[in-house]
Amino acid sequence: MLFNFIPREFNFFDLFEKQIDCAIEAAMHLKEIVRKGYVDEESLKKMQDIEHKGDEAAHLIIDRLNKSFITPFDREDIHSLAKEMDDIADTINTIVNRLKVYKVTGADKNLIEFASIIEESVRTLAIAVKGMRNMEHSKSVVEACVEVNRLENVGDDLRDKVLAELFENEKDPIKVIKMKDIYQDAETVLDICEDVAHVVGSILVKQA
Amino acid sequence: MLFNFIPREFNFFDLFEKQIDCAIEAAMHLKEIVRKGYVDEESLKKMQDIEHKGDEAAHLIIDRLNKSFITPFDREDIHSLAKEMDDIADTINTIVNRLKVYKVTGADKNLIEFASIIEESVRTLAIAVKGMRNMEHSKSVVEACVEVNRLENVGDDLRDKVLAELFENEKDPIKVIKMKDIYQDAETVLDICEDVAHVVGSILVKQA
Amino acid sequence: MLFNFIPREFNFFDLFEKQIDCAIEAAMHLKEIVRKGYVDEESLKKMQDIEHKGDEAAHLIIDRLNKSFITPFDREDIHSLAKEMDDIADTINTIVNRLKVYKVTGADKNLIEFASIIEESVRTLAIAVKGMRNMEHSKSVVEACVEVNRLENVGDDLRDKVLAELFENEKDPIKVIKMKDIYQDAETVLDICEDVAHVVGSILVKQA
Repeated sequence: MLFNFIPREFNFFDLFEKQIDCAIEAAMHLKEIVRKGYVDEESLKKMQDIEHKGDEAAHLIIDRLNKSFITPFDREDIHSLAKEMDDIADTINTIVNRLKVYKVTGADKNLIEFASIIEESVRTLAIAVKGMRNMEHSKSVVEACVEVNRLENVGDDLRDKVLAELFENEKDPIKVIKMKDIYQDAETVLDICEDVAHVVGSILVKQA
Repeated sequence: MLFNFIPREFNFFDLFEKQIDCAIEAAMHLKEIVRKGYVDEESLKKMQDIEHKGDEAAHLIIDRLNKSFITPFDREDIHSLAKEMDDIADTINTIVNRLKVYKVTGADKNLIEFASIIEESVRTLAIAVKGMRNMEHSKSVVEACVEVNRLENVGDDLRDKVLAELFENEKDPIKVIKMKDIYQDAETVLDICEDVAHVVGSILVKQA
Repeated sequence: MLFNFIPREFNFFDLFEKQIDCAIEAAMHLKEIVRKGYVDEESLKKMQDIEHKGDEAAHLIIDRLNKSFITPFDREDIHSLAKEMDDIADTINTIVNRLKVYKVTGADKNLIEFASIIEESVRTLAIAVKGMRNMEHSKSVVEACVEVNRLENVGDDLRDKVLAELFENEKDPIKVIKMKDIYQDAETVLDICEDVAHVVGSILVKQA
């Protein structure tokens, strides 16, 4: 096998930061949409553009990884990190797409709450991801990862609460089907953030 | 650890081709079933036989991989390729099984359209998988991978369209539950084809 | 990169056994709950405690893996084993949580049957996992893995039967939504057991 030698200073960190910035943008856009209470063509397009930008960064990371001989940390960790971060904007895009396809309209207070927690989690994750550049700041990285874990638990409790309410109060089964999907996707975003935090944590341990 | 040395010429490509041929068979059988509009015992049995044949090829690949010292490309890529290709026939089998379990009968034009796109995607993927044997044909491999990606997007749009129609027109919630599962499984097959294409693409990059 | 050298005798097997014991505990607790026919606060708390104990063992394994230079078998197999075993108690916890959130009450004979198969599968898996400590017992490990595979097929058939009955007999779509989720989760536990058996089998092959 021949390697295309890439200068060893090829900067994975720049691309990880680009990915997490896309995730923040996606989270902010979701919050805006659920507050407004509907998805128009423009919002849908904007969401797809954000997801596309994130995809490009992820593909570039994988491509460089495949061509690089020397990497700043374990290859499989770089791969997981790129893939999991990509899943954040992807899953937020799924939520927005479902709102559109299912024609869900009206500001839903539960969804607004989910969107706030998602934004908080993604912003906290950004501290962890950006902190990897300089492992002297590992204390703040660890704290951010712990906080992302905490927010995942908050999300679990919120999902349980809103699903219990949905099954208790909503008599239209079609609406139950729709909102159940959307709430579960929202909780999935928080699960993915937790997965990213685990990868970051595991990189930290190996560098210690 | 002791290695069972396997002659280095053990041919993984033969098994990959067997796997993708099973996927094609599964896709053709699905198309036939959805056109006919019902699943009888014979079709179910045939589908399970195809899936079983694919399983055997996948298990053989993993087994040989575990025992081989030298492999034609990265071990984890061989593993992913075998696993993802196996998932194609598995998920097609899931669709056929659901049609049976849910007692869905009657030719559904949306499902027929999905089955056609799935067959096209799997056949295109076969060009990519078979092309790996001879990397001088890498141009046609790349083109096939790009086409599989395009078909995944076509599948996404189709799923959005048919789900929107389903929620708009179908008043029986039980039918909504059933068809939503089946359409989503159909789209998942296209996602898996795209995943296989990504693995093939990444093998190509490393060999470049 | 600096390694924290861990004495090579660090015992991964103790932690794997702790994990599978948690899975057994979870399976037994599930059986008790579904026989009783309701989830009270105490049962929910007990289930979360079991899951938490399993989580701790999994995290400890990953942590030690990241810090260890020498491992009893392939790093990726240790990682998969820890992750998949963790998923057993997690998914059982999901079932218990759904019973609570969906307010499903009353002993359901199908769910009792699933719980019995799950317990049998997890107990059989424990034979395989514990047998890894001493590969001279590999015959009993292989037999246990084969049996776990068989039980997964039994679970598939049971799921098909109960879903067909559910769609045939249950006229309340909300109940269909609830029970479909729960039966599918139950079958997923058996899938995960099969995945664990595959990892164990693959470790065995490599050690042969």
